[in-house]
Amino acid sequence: MNNPFFKSHGPLKINKILKLIDAGSFYNQKNQNIYGIKDLISSTPKDITFLHSKKYSEAASKTKANYCITTNNLSHFLPTTCLPIIVENVLLKTSIITKAFYPDSINDEFDNTVKEISKTSYSKKVKHGKNILIGKNVKIGKNCLIGHNTIIEKNVVIGNNCSIGSNVIIRNTVIEDNVYILDGCVIGKKGFGFFPNNDQNIRYPQIGFVLIKKNSEIGCGSTIDRGSISNTVIGKNTFLDNQIHIAHNVKIGNNCIIAGQVGFAGSSIINDNVMIGGQAGISGHIKIGNKVQIGGGSGVIKDVDDNSKVMGYPAKNLRDFLKENK
Amino acid sequence: MNNPFFKSHGPLKINKILKLIDAGSFYNQKNQNIYGIKDLISSTPKDITFLHSKKYSEAASKTKANYCITTNNLSHFLPTTCLPIIVENVLLKTSIITKAFYPDSINDEFDNTVKEISKTSYSKKVKHGKNILIGKNVKIGKNCLIGHNTIIEKNVVIGNNCSIGSNVIIRNTVIEDNVYILDGCVIGKKGFGFFPNNDQNIRYPQIGFVLIKKNSEIGCGSTIDRGSISNTVIGKNTFLDNQIHIAHNVKIGNNCIIAGQVGFAGSSIINDNVMIGGQAGISGHIKIGNKVQIGGGSGVIKDVDDNSKVMGYPAKNLRDFLKENK
Amino acid sequence: MNNPFFKSHGPLKINKILKLIDAGSFYNQKNQNIYGIKDLISSTPKDITFLHSKKYSEAASKTKANYCITTNNLSHFLPTTCLPIIVENVLLKTSIITKAFYPDSINDEFDNTVKEISKTSYSKKVKHGKNILIGKNVKIGKNCLIGHNTIIEKNVVIGNNCSIGSNVIIRNTVIEDNVYILDGCVIGKKGFGFFPNNDQNIRYPQIGFVLIKKNSEIGCGSTIDRGSISNTVIGKNTFLDNQIHIAHNVKIGNNCIIAGQVGFAGSSIINDNVMIGGQAGISGHIKIGNKVQIGGGSGVIKDVDDNSKVMGYPAKNLRDFLKENK
Repeated sequence: MNNPFFKSHGPLKINKILKLIDAGSFYNQKNQNIYGIKDLISSTPKDITFLHSKKYSEAASKTKANYCITTNNLSHFLPTTCLPIIVENVLLKTSIITKAFYPDSINDEFDNTVKEISKTSYSKKVKHGKNILIGKNVKIGKNCLIGHNTIIEKNVVIGNNCSIGSNVIIRNTVIEDNVYILDGCVIGKKGFGFFPNNDQNIRYPQIGFVLIKKNSEIGCGSTIDRGSISNTVIGKNTFLDNQIHIAHNVKIGNNCIIAGQVGFAGSSIINDNVMIGGQAGISGHIKIGNKVQIGGGSGVIKDVDDNSKVMGYPAKNLRDFLKENK
Repeated sequence: MNNPFFKSHGPLKINKILKLIDAGSFYNQKNQNIYGIKDLISSTPKDITFLHSKKYSEAASKTKANYCITTNNLSHFLPTTCLPIIVENVLLKTSIITKAFYPDSINDEFDNTVKEISKTSYSKKVKHGKNILIGKNVKIGKNCLIGHNTIIEKNVVIGNNCSIGSNVIIRNTVIEDNVYILDGCVIGKKGFGFFPNNDQNIRYPQIGFVLIKKNSEIGCGSTIDRGSISNTVIGKNTFLDNQIHIAHNVKIGNNCIIAGQVGFAGSSIINDNVMIGGQAGISGHIKIGNKVQIGGGSGVIKDVDDNSKVMGYPAKNLRDFLKENK
Repeated sequence: MNNPFFKSHGPLKINKILKLIDAGSFYNQKNQNIYGIKDLISSTPKDITFLHSKKYSEAASKTKANYCITTNNLSHFLPTTCLPIIVENVLLKTSIITKAFYPDSINDEFDNTVKEISKTSYSKKVKHGKNILIGKNVKIGKNCLIGHNTIIEKNVVIGNNCSIGSNVIIRNTVIEDNVYILDGCVIGKKGFGFFPNNDQNIRYPQIGFVLIKKNSEIGCGSTIDRGSISNTVIGKNTFLDNQIHIAHNVKIGNNCIIAGQVGFAGSSIINDNVMIGGQAGISGHIKIGNKVQIGGGSGVIKDVDDNSKVMGYPAKNLRDFLKENK
């Protein structure tokens, strides 16, 4: 949660925060400055944090935050140094506070800071095509190529020896050396996160970014969403084929090979040397071990152990799948 | 079937129509003007209609049209005021007549009416990126954003407070207030409809449009085809994730949540408050009830009742699916 | 394997080739010129060939090549006129040699030979939109349309009466008459082929091209990769819906109808008059017969006989699938 991109609009007064979430009864005489909203572990006494599940009770007991958004049932896990702010929907209120700190992280309006590359210092440094737009806060390394009609919006770091194709859109992304992004990808847009709400859903802030490690390749027409609170990560020397969708917070390891049209739901973790066949789908919040092989078309809905071969919908041991389907 | 966009080339003389479909033997002395081709219910005495299935026998018995394309077996369902024109392939002949009335609805050639936005009245009214093209017969409301390289082709209405991303192409579409269209979508192209014919298929006219109701969001790289005879509709406050495909005539209700890479075949109806997991597929011409939940990766090939939870391929009751796959 | 596009950097001296693949011990006094790398059948005495599987033993026994990359176990299939060059990984070494002959076939850097269409002879000949780029070695026939922001990179031949949409990217492709390519397609990029290698995969040369035969249509947002050694072929009057992915070397026959989001893994062969429902997946290296019908969502993992109807994952006889899933 060390996001280099979104500018915090903090500090915010605690009373302002309480008012935002309709917790006005906590009116606070000191009315301290709050500098950020962080998870239980990384919070300092200057931050506000949140606790929405018993799963995090141990972390809660050690938090250094002075304030914590939580429910009546969970508040006893907090240390005496941390004042619970009791609400009904912890994540919704957390979302409202995050939005106050990072108002730019909610929507993905087009970047109006971009300039034609010819009007930037990259005009000579980068070998580039026609009609390229570069936003504010962009860094591009040596020996890079950028194809036609590509838009590098604000908040992008590109390493050395990278090749970005044509018709690509990138924002809120860190790309290491020697990475290939093929034509038509959209990388770093906000994840599909919101609270359903009749008549008008409430968008959840997406303050993470996308990290693509060195020597990787992303196929044509793929979409990689940035993280909501943590980041979305593509490991080293991992190759993705065309039309792949990677949702927010997914972490893919090193040396993975992922065939066309595969989809990853949010927050799943894929370890190293994993091979995934075409059109497979990986559910959200699950863990795929090292050296796992997943057959094409599989639907993986639970964790998979290291070195397993699985196939089917739902995915099971490959041998069983083949035996049952002889 | 109240299409505001395609201009009718009618009226056409009835003898000209008969000749077009090789039904010349019906040579008609009065040679009246025919003003349009409509379905059995909405036809007036000035229109021609069509009847291709017994399913519509009741509607047929009440039609006010003076002429009806139909088969020998079905003609007796028509009232005496309606002259049957007997053919072998009703839909093919209907297609040929529709094409004569609406020649622009067959192909989707690029729109050569577009101008750079800087040369239109929207230059100041809309907050916009670079290299944007706007076609004829486009209306854009207040406080809208349009990203870079986006093409709003002819026949598009956009409400207030909408955000259209970059690299988007829109045509034949009505968008209500407060809608988000993310990067790289293609909306309003002709549906995948044609009569297979050796050596050269015959394209079916697609005279409907796309309607996206207020507060909705369409994810990156999604495609929504316009209707063939009725319209394609996305309900109010319905959110679509990335890489979704919606075929012609599909109607999705309000407050639906649809995850990445889901596909809808033509003419299906999805009611309100439906949730669909990633990569699920919905067959054509089926009906999904209210508050239905469909698991990721499912293949839904028949109607689903209100309040059901289904999963699997083919999709079945969720509890059964989980029990069978423990 | 008659690629008109990639320029051979041959001839190369045999000793140079041996050195490239660390087979220096074959130092050759004559040090002949080698003019190309070809398959066993099409090789002449001036070429080098490769044999990596017993499957090709008969072809091997008849090869006319003077040199063949192979393994110790397979070398006895070669005629005495052909000198075996023994290696451990035949395909890897073949890849290295192919790369030496066709260095341009490895990566798909953006084409820096393109010019604005207004600066080419096509400015008047083609009815075109705005912001179109045309590369070297492009031929476009009569009565063609090209939409906005489209890039025709080098090495493309387009026939007569074709309509190319907007935001399309095409390279290394031959398109016959009367073909429609809809918006947002990427056609002719390198296939997803490489040798996995820790820390940095080794890309396999992709020297084939894409051939789209007459009267066909390719839906929005589809990707068709060029062949690695043979070509990727779309047959005559074959219609593809949106968001379809076709991997390298796939050959699709005539009069096929393929619905949205279908994916084809590499090197499969689909015969004529095949119909495939939405989201189906076809494994690599299999053969689908004539007049086959494949249900939506199916995963086809083995050959399918002529005239069969299949459905399911894995796909089986349609009647069995429906019976088991009543």
